[in-house]
Amino acid sequence: VGAVRPEMSAARFVETGRKILAVGRNYRAHAAELGNAIPSEPFFFLKPTSSYLKNGGVIERPAQCCDLHFEVELGVVIGKPGKRISEANALDHVAGYALALDMTARDIQEKLKEKKLPWTLAKGFDTSCPISDFIPKSAIPNPHDVGLWLKVNSQIKQNGNTKDMIFNIPQLISFLSQSFTLEEGDLILTGTPSGVGPVQPGDVIEAGLTDLIDIRFTVAQQPE
Amino acid sequence: VGAVRPEMSAARFVETGRKILAVGRNYRAHAAELGNAIPSEPFFFLKPTSSYLKNGGVIERPAQCCDLHFEVELGVVIGKPGKRISEANALDHVAGYALALDMTARDIQEKLKEKKLPWTLAKGFDTSCPISDFIPKSAIPNPHDVGLWLKVNSQIKQNGNTKDMIFNIPQLISFLSQSFTLEEGDLILTGTPSGVGPVQPGDVIEAGLTDLIDIRFTVAQQPE
Ligand SMILES: [Mg+2]
Ligand SMILES: [Mg+2]
Ligand SMILES: [Mg+2]
Repeated sequence: VGAVRPEMSAARFVETGRKILAVGRNYRAHAAELGNAIPSEPFFFLKPTSSYLKNGGVIERPAQCCDLHFEVELGVVIGKPGKRISEANALDHVAGYALALDMTARDIQEKLKEKKLPWTLAKGFDTSCPISDFIPKSAIPNPHDVGLWLKVNSQIKQNGNTKDMIFNIPQLISFLSQSFTLEEGDLILTGTPSGVGPVQPGDVIEAGLTDLIDIRFTVAQQPE
Repeated sequence: VGAVRPEMSAARFVETGRKILAVGRNYRAHAAELGNAIPSEPFFFLKPTSSYLKNGGVIERPAQCCDLHFEVELGVVIGKPGKRISEANALDHVAGYALALDMTARDIQEKLKEKKLPWTLAKGFDTSCPISDFIPKSAIPNPHDVGLWLKVNSQIKQNGNTKDMIFNIPQLISFLSQSFTLEEGDLILTGTPSGVGPVQPGDVIEAGLTDLIDIRFTVAQQPE
């Protein structure tokens, strides 16, 4: 595989990464705001890498969606491949971080949930993973005490801190890697704090990780 | 992106592909055998590319699974990237095919469905996508009339034909590409005919596409 992707490096995860594993309901206040129980173990869904949207881009609300929600999340970029990683060794597998939005077609998701179907159409459409540049690990010495915020049209909507995660990063990496080999460039989305809500075509979303990085996207309707 | 993956070609999709989109319930008899309604539009889930297992490998039944099912499926390998592809142009985007097993932890899937959660842990674990070599498009002039069969310990379990798909390949490509950009090396799993069932550690699974290709895997318990 080394020969196949000679220029791969975790810093270029948007181009080279092969999966995005996203945890749901990893902040108590967010689980509560959507009327969900606090999970006793983490659950996950996949977003395809075709859903990445680089900073400054246009988030397209899918044609069948009338309730597109933002969820600001800390992303963890894997640097060292591994399987069945212990919590003690988990952070050795982290190359860095990124700030991400887990854009969610909430109405489509609700319909899929009613039918007990997977969330792929609600969570994986093109532009559903707006993403910052890579943040090297050294820039965030303690990933479990980082503020993350999100504004819509300059109004603050989400203002959380990663210290409120239910399952922390080593727990997520260890749990996931029991089932899934983690590869260089994979991204783990660690869940969103409370305050999620809808955006409309024309809205501007800004989000940041304390004063480390910020990102900005506009929302449009997907062309017919 | 061209510079990033200079040696990519659809024939090497197992190493280079970035997503696996799998359709559920695409054969009437299979939907019925699991007690599900016939879908009015296709639904999809994702399997990560880390779930690929090459011919001859060992399928590992996950630690928490007591009911691991086989599902033999025709895989469609994308050769030409595209978005919002028309049904008329869909086959132009196909580079070839592969025979795949959509291995499913049925008991885990049922628990997730009860909780209205995504199926990722039941469908995406390592070794859950056993896969044949690439089959060039020219070897299958009509992909909608191909026999696919599966045996466990030499006993025939599935024996279907792709002509019984509810949504055919152009319909699947067109539908998916409304939401997801299809990239070179992506795989679409087109659903399984009836006859799915469990395998136990020690079992041998063989499957084939008429007399075009056959594959063979053994089943083991995931080591603790
Ligand atoms: Mg989320
Ligand atoms: Mg899924
Ligand atoms: Mg299947």
